[in-house]
Formats: sequence, C-alpha cells, structure tokens
Amino acid sequence: VFAGEFTLDYAYQREDKEGLTLGNELEKIGYKGKDIINPSEFYASLELHIEQGPILEKEEKTIGIVTGVQGIRWYEITIVGNECHAGPTPMSYRTDPVMILPKLIKKLYEIGEQYAPDSRITIGSINTQPGVTNTVPGTVDLTLDIRNPDQNILDQMHLEVQEVIRKCDHDSNASVHLHEVWHSPSVRFAPICIDAVQVAAEVSGYPHRKLVSGAGHDSVYISKVVPTSMIFIPCKDGLSHNESESIEKEHAIAGTNVMLNAVLNIK
Amino acid sequence: VFAGEFTLDYAYQREDKEGLTLGNELEKIGYKGKDIINPSEFYASLELHIEQGPILEKEEKTIGIVTGVQGIRWYEITIVGNECHAGPTPMSYRTDPVMILPKLIKKLYEIGEQYAPDSRITIGSINTQPGVTNTVPGTVDLTLDIRNPDQNILDQMHLEVQEVIRKCDHDSNASVHLHEVWHSPSVRFAPICIDAVQVAAEVSGYPHRKLVSGAGHDSVYISKVVPTSMIFIPCKDGLSHNESESIEKEHAIAGTNVMLNAVLNIK
Repeated sequence: VFAGEFTLDYAYQREDKEGLTLGNELEKIGYKGKDIINPSEFYASLELHIEQGPILEKEEKTIGIVTGVQGIRWYEITIVGNECHAGPTPMSYRTDPVMILPKLIKKLYEIGEQYAPDSRITIGSINTQPGVTNTVPGTVDLTLDIRNPDQNILDQMHLEVQEVIRKCDHDSNASVHLHEVWHSPSVRFAPICIDAVQVAAEVSGYPHRKLVSGAGHDSVYISKVVPTSMIFIPCKDGLSHNESESIEKEHAIAGTNVMLNAVLNIK
Repeated sequence: VFAGEFTLDYAYQREDKEGLTLGNELEKIGYKGKDIINPSEFYASLELHIEQGPILEKEEKTIGIVTGVQGIRWYEITIVGNECHAGPTPMSYRTDPVMILPKLIKKLYEIGEQYAPDSRITIGSINTQPGVTNTVPGTVDLTLDIRNPDQNILDQMHLEVQEVIRKCDHDSNASVHLHEVWHSPSVRFAPICIDAVQVAAEVSGYPHRKLVSGAGHDSVYISKVVPTSMIFIPCKDGLSHNESESIEKEHAIAGTNVMLNAVLNIK
C-alpha cells in the first residue's frame, strides 16, 4: 500500500483462513489509523535481513551489500503423450511423454549455464499422470522457475525457454506446452544506499561482499518510491522459512552496526 | 492354488476391503467344495483373451498365437540431493537431483533400444519432494518396469540397469539408489499347444501372427503344471482395464472357432 502497489481498501479486505479481515482486526486492537503515509517524507530505506542462502557463510563474509533483487519468471510445462499398458505396447507404438524429459531438462539447464553464474534454473516439481508403475504416463507436468538479476538477460532467457519448448514440441510425437504463471521483474537498488552500506561495511572492518538477493523482500516494493538497499548477514546452512533457521549473535551485532553507520552515511 | 503357487489356506484367508475372507464367503454360498483338483487330470490348457495391446489391431490380424509371457522386473529408483531455495542458492552450490534425470532416463531407455524390438522400458512415475515451484527438490523417486520375453535377455537388462544406477551415482554429487521391487520370470508356453493354435488359425483362414503376451495371465501359473498356450483377439485401441475396452463380435467368433479347433488339434 505504501508503495502504491495495492490500494488501502484491497489491503483492509484481505481475509485469513477463518474469514477475518485485516481492516476489522486492526480496528479491534485500535491500530486502524487515519493518517496518510507519504513516501516523499522518507529520504531513504534500509532493511537488515538474513541472506536466506549459503553464499556469505560459505565465503566467510559477515556482511552482504545488497545491490538488487533477481527478476523471476514462473512457468508450467505440460507434455502430453498417450497413456498405455507397459507390457503389451511395443516401444515403437508409444507416445511416451517421459522420453521428452532428457532433452527438455538438459536444454533448460543449459539456458542457465549460458548466463552463469547469476542465473538460476529450478525444476521444482515433476508429476506423471496416472503415475503407476506398469502404465506409460499420459502426461508429465513440470514447474520451471528462472531468475536473473539483469532484466535484459531474464527477458532473453524467457525467449530461450519458449524456443526450447517449441523445439521439443516439434521434434517429438508428444506435444509440449508452455504456460506462463508469474513474472516479477528484477530490481536494482539505489546507488546512494548501496554506497552508504558499502562504506559502513568497509569502515567497520567486517568481511563483506556485494550480493543480489535471490528471494523477494518488502524492499522490492519500497524501492519503487524511496531510494533503498539491504544488508544481509549469514544464516546457518543457508536455511530459512524452516525451523532450523538460525544466526550467530555476532552477526546480528555486525549487521546492526553496519545498518547504523549506513544510515549515518546517507546524506 | 491349482498350480501350487499358493496354499489353499492362504487363498481362503484372503480378505477384501471390508475384512470378508474368500473361505467364509465361498462357504456362505455353498461353493466351498472338498474335492482336490489334481493337475495331472488335465491334458492341456488354452485361454482365449483380448490382446490388451495394439499390435493385432494395427497389423489387421484377427488371431494372436501366444508363445509365452514376458518376464517383468520392477524397481524403485531414488535420487537424493539437497533441498534448497530456488532464488538465493547459486547453481554451483546445489545438489539438484533433477539434474541427474536427463542422463539417467536416457541410459535406461537405451537398455531397451539395445534389445529392440521385444524389450519394454517404462518409467511410470516420477515424483519430486517437496514438489514446490521455488524449491530445488531434495529427492526424486522414479519407478522402472522392464520386460523381455527371453529370460536371459531380461537378466542381462537387469545387470545393465544396476550398472546405469551405479554410474549415475558415481558421476554425480547426488546419490542414486536402486531398490528391486518384483520379479516375474518369463514364461514359454508348450510347443504342443502353440502348434495346435497355429494349425487352427491357418486352417480357419483368419489373418494371424505369433505374439508374446506383455501382460500377466492365469495361464502363467497354469503353464507351470499343464501344457498351456493362449489365443489373443484384437481390442479397440489396445485398451483394457478401462471403461473404453471393447471388441468386435466377429473377432469373438473367430477366437472361439480357433479355440475349438485348437482343442480338437491337441491329441
């Protein structure tokens, strides 16, 4: 709402699983204020966060200077063949959607390799229907998540995904379909804020490096209306959104010190 | 029970979903007899069946002379990697089990190609855990069904499956495990019965060919104690165990005629 991405009414109407709305619940506890928050009253924004990934820990850095957030595209891919009995059906009579997978998966990962090391290619789910040992599947569904911090490269990767699907569809007797699910464009944070964090990290003496956030954050929206950057600290094994998530006390202290000095640096 | 594969008590104790046993239910309807069936009283056995596959229909043959039943082996394959977030985790830090699939699937199908056209390779189910768009899966589970009418070749294919798994495990940072689930050895029917069916088909003038059954049948067990063969007729689109299963009346007539003459031929 603050960044203009959603209206205030939209936010108030959001319901939880039990049908309680944010607006009513804020009113109940006396937190439904009337003041309008004006982004122009803010000079800059900094957010301190755990990395949610393994880079700082593996490279033994204490501070990540976050220069932006990766652009993300989500897809669903469906391969349609012909369901049939695994025994009586000769291989030459089959339209087996699983046979498309080696080429399809290989080509998709190659898109990532082409734009290494900043690209991410993730096939999080593969599902065969009906999924029975002695039946050639009729369909295979895959999810695809591609990411790059550079929007131009992400757009190029998108075209290449389309081309891989077109080629797999053309070259096989099964049919291969691409469905675009979601697109979150990449974000570059404000140089004024990035520089402030960098100077604070250098002065503090903590080991540090620049990073692009792989996950989304409040700062993605904030950055649309106010100069913004983020500070990352390491988390154990790169885990987050998980009961095993944990950080070291000295990293929390280091992050807070860099945050303080970065705020003082922004003028 | 007749073929000695299971004991009579084992059969009587089989329960349905509601806990009713075969023995009790046979008794209730007066069908739990006391006579012992002696296979030595039977001279031969013939079974008339739909093909459950597309070969006869596609080749416009009316009669299949069944020379045996394919041997079958079932496996579960598990690839274990490291579950992680699709965004913040660089490709080089991942142990992504999906990356093993192109090579693994390709190599498994190649085992079938090597022993074409009688081999069958079916990967009926692929399952990713946790199966979420923005998470690199921690594990991928596959089922594998391999078949060949020649037991020696099936045994050779089994060794090659083990070798493919060993190699995929060795060559990658993920670990690949093979679990053997089931083995049904191949069956060769009795020449005396096969010949009787063949002569009956030739005399009748129906278009015919020899076939190996891809599916299992009662005759697999019967053939262990009595000379046995089968007669196949076409089914629509090769479908069976399916509401769309259907046959032509003239094929039923043809099958029955061949059955009759084959019985008369066996002396």
